[in-house]
Amino acid sequence: MNESTVITDSTEGEEFVKDITRMSDDFDRWYTDVVRKAELADYTPVRGCMVIRPYGFAMWEAIQRAFDDMIKASGHENWYFPLLIPEELLAREADHVEGFTPEVAWVTEAGSHGRLDQRLAIRPTSEAIVGTLIRRYIQSHRDLPKLTNQWCNVVRWEMRTRLFLRTAEFLWQEGHTFHATAEEAKEEVDLILGCYRALSEEWLAMPVLAGLKSRSETFAGAVHSKSIEAMMRDGLALQAGTSHYFGQNFSRAYDISFSNPQNQRELCYSTSWGVSTRLIGGLIMAHGDDTGLVLPPRVAPVQVVVVPIFRDAAGRERVEAFVETWRPHVEGAGIRLRVDWSPDRPGEKFNRWELKGVPIRLEVGPRDVEGHQVTLVDRLTREKRQVPAAGLAERLRDELERFQRDLFRRALDFREANSYELGSLEEVIEHFRERTGFVLAPWCGSAECEERVKEATGGVTIRNYDPDVPAAGTCLACGRPGAWQVTFARAY
Amino acid sequence: MNESTVITDSTEGEEFVKDITRMSDDFDRWYTDVVRKAELADYTPVRGCMVIRPYGFAMWEAIQRAFDDMIKASGHENWYFPLLIPEELLAREADHVEGFTPEVAWVTEAGSHGRLDQRLAIRPTSEAIVGTLIRRYIQSHRDLPKLTNQWCNVVRWEMRTRLFLRTAEFLWQEGHTFHATAEEAKEEVDLILGCYRALSEEWLAMPVLAGLKSRSETFAGAVHSKSIEAMMRDGLALQAGTSHYFGQNFSRAYDISFSNPQNQRELCYSTSWGVSTRLIGGLIMAHGDDTGLVLPPRVAPVQVVVVPIFRDAAGRERVEAFVETWRPHVEGAGIRLRVDWSPDRPGEKFNRWELKGVPIRLEVGPRDVEGHQVTLVDRLTREKRQVPAAGLAERLRDELERFQRDLFRRALDFREANSYELGSLEEVIEHFRERTGFVLAPWCGSAECEERVKEATGGVTIRNYDPDVPAAGTCLACGRPGAWQVTFARAY
Repeated sequence: MNESTVITDSTEGEEFVKDITRMSDDFDRWYTDVVRKAELADYTPVRGCMVIRPYGFAMWEAIQRAFDDMIKASGHENWYFPLLIPEELLAREADHVEGFTPEVAWVTEAGSHGRLDQRLAIRPTSEAIVGTLIRRYIQSHRDLPKLTNQWCNVVRWEMRTRLFLRTAEFLWQEGHTFHATAEEAKEEVDLILGCYRALSEEWLAMPVLAGLKSRSETFAGAVHSKSIEAMMRDGLALQAGTSHYFGQNFSRAYDISFSNPQNQRELCYSTSWGVSTRLIGGLIMAHGDDTGLVLPPRVAPVQVVVVPIFRDAAGRERVEAFVETWRPHVEGAGIRLRVDWSPDRPGEKFNRWELKGVPIRLEVGPRDVEGHQVTLVDRLTREKRQVPAAGLAERLRDELERFQRDLFRRALDFREANSYELGSLEEVIEHFRERTGFVLAPWCGSAECEERVKEATGGVTIRNYDPDVPAAGTCLACGRPGAWQVTFARAY
Repeated sequence: MNESTVITDSTEGEEFVKDITRMSDDFDRWYTDVVRKAELADYTPVRGCMVIRPYGFAMWEAIQRAFDDMIKASGHENWYFPLLIPEELLAREADHVEGFTPEVAWVTEAGSHGRLDQRLAIRPTSEAIVGTLIRRYIQSHRDLPKLTNQWCNVVRWEMRTRLFLRTAEFLWQEGHTFHATAEEAKEEVDLILGCYRALSEEWLAMPVLAGLKSRSETFAGAVHSKSIEAMMRDGLALQAGTSHYFGQNFSRAYDISFSNPQNQRELCYSTSWGVSTRLIGGLIMAHGDDTGLVLPPRVAPVQVVVVPIFRDAAGRERVEAFVETWRPHVEGAGIRLRVDWSPDRPGEKFNRWELKGVPIRLEVGPRDVEGHQVTLVDRLTREKRQVPAAGLAERLRDELERFQRDLFRRALDFREANSYELGSLEEVIEHFRERTGFVLAPWCGSAECEERVKEATGGVTIRNYDPDVPAAGTCLACGRPGAWQVTFARAY
């Protein structure tokens, strides 16, 4: 089957996004409008691939720095493994290759050498190549655990793509760890799930449900998978990160073994886990509004924007001199500040930086200069407050911390207001006919019942569940004893 | 032509590198031994691709951080552009595609979609895709300059590969900038060349010659290319970074234009520039010795290693308690310190960390504990010195700074001792028959004479030259008036 690799460049030019669609009118269009108009990313002539622009990439850099610090603190080390994986290596773990083959891009020709004798996969994920290589570095139990991570690009050939959420190429980190015991490997899966929760909640202000995936949603080749799931402002779920326990599946396929203290060879237990640029899509949809982005201060490329207001050159000079009395202190306190001296009108600047989700705006006009103050407006409440220039750096630090907390609280309130506890399939069908949101309901654990809900609701899935929380009643679908309370939702 | 993509895994297991070859016996084998035995990188079953291990990757992270800070300070912004480039886009700049086609790996099939209707190149460099996309974001002269950079992987299908120096896939940064005037673009090329010099000299302690490349060594599609060239300890040159001026070549091919203040459309002037993981190969070969690596403190993953010396559990406790009195201060001062508590004998630890090039070793035995001191040994002089534990953090900071300076000085002395000024082709042929090093000689500027030297010497090339330094005599090859003094060398 042929397909077009170069699409007509219909998305060219930002000028086509004049105004953003209202969120309430069309959430999907609102999302794409915001991503493009706020200069985060764009589609490209390369099918399914996006370009990430500086304002979007700076968020990814902040996310990288935060998570990289977390995993290094717990003993993980960064490696770099090859982009290309020979087909025979990829094929060694049967479930894994079956799961990924439909999405693999293949290199078959190279330079003047012509056709290769074996296809090379562009990594869709790196279990195969990490497994192949890591065995060299594991001889004895003293070499364990081996805690590896890499930041890289991967390619999964997707038919329907969406900026940040699902693209043919995306950036991510993938951790791969190897352990002497099953227990330790399972603890690793949970440790990382905790890091993902911290990253989402503390950095992105995005509350998540951390839990186990059902069998049907388990990663290809894994014994079990866990995920964090966030609620977007349209009530849909976004799987924002996953952590997988492989038991000895991959170690068997790739012969990754160690000699135990009794000098016997044993297979390792392994895990893998990843978060990607999808997180940026998540924070946009978790916090945005009709005006555009609302960014959590900890990952905002610009935390405070200054809009100078003046009539003439002399006025500008006075404002600039005043701004310069406190700007160095604010920046010295580690606050990411931008002064917008562009020739546009103040109102245009207000709109631009609101669209870009900057948490705090400072308006500085003649009256502010006179009163040795600034007018502070935050992106959430939009209230105007006069604030003295003395001690501004400390004040802004406090305001940004408060903003971060309030944003998380708002997202948590929204999730709670859109979460429901239901008991029967009829109620669940009825619910999702009219509404979105998270529905907690009892499930017996069978794939049949899971599938039945999915069919009856036109695509609602079990997002995840806490295996320590028993069902509150009989299974919503079959009426047999329930095993767990699980969260159902429509998802991205 | 077919070729093997999976090689027999003959490099498996570190245990095969028992001792490193002596540098003086076989420089090439010394290099590979050191890279593998010091756990920097390894070959893989994927043809021409390497795995970068944590000790090597940490150096790349230090290099990235240093250079990223430099270019952000001068207004450059990080983007991310697609990995895959449709063939028709790559083909638009004729010289460029001709230069790179022999090295391109092609994606021709993808997932369940089968054969693509157009081949997709894995980027060997990104001028084509950056050029295609950047035009959307440049409307007016107010959008210029556009200063973009990305950190990414690229693939160039090389037949003969060498860890870090030449691999089919490598990591790099590539900057692409767009300007309103030729003058400004040329200044950008020089600004970046200056950053590359600073990165090499101040961070890697590796002196470089910054200068212009001859026409035959100019980047495919460029008007002129500049480079930094370092001398390795075998007297060969390593091109460690390049910065290219494109004039309007790429803007013409990709139609990148802006409206000037008179509202007329003009083509942009553009540049590109890059340094790669090759820099790690450079610092190994610029500083190493028969014992292994010697690392510049500013990029050393471990700057100070502590080797505790004790006889029994009680002795260990006393040493540990003593180390803990100053370790927090040293780490608190931002010094990367590692205490080696492994069960190996002290002598084994000395060898391991000397091989790994750690600048400073602290030996801490019972007598040191008693005297409230440590025994300091540096990797360059290997002299032992007793140093009081009081004020150790400050002392180590000073020692590391001194080490950084001394290492640079040693490399500079080595380069000067291996640089020659010659006048005739006969002398140059004679020189390179017996020796390596840098030879400064007058050249008329013609490609014929350049080629004649190359042939007569079996591969000696013009590394670069300062166009402001006129020839000291007539052209070494043709005897006509010389134009410039240029540096000849054998190179990696």
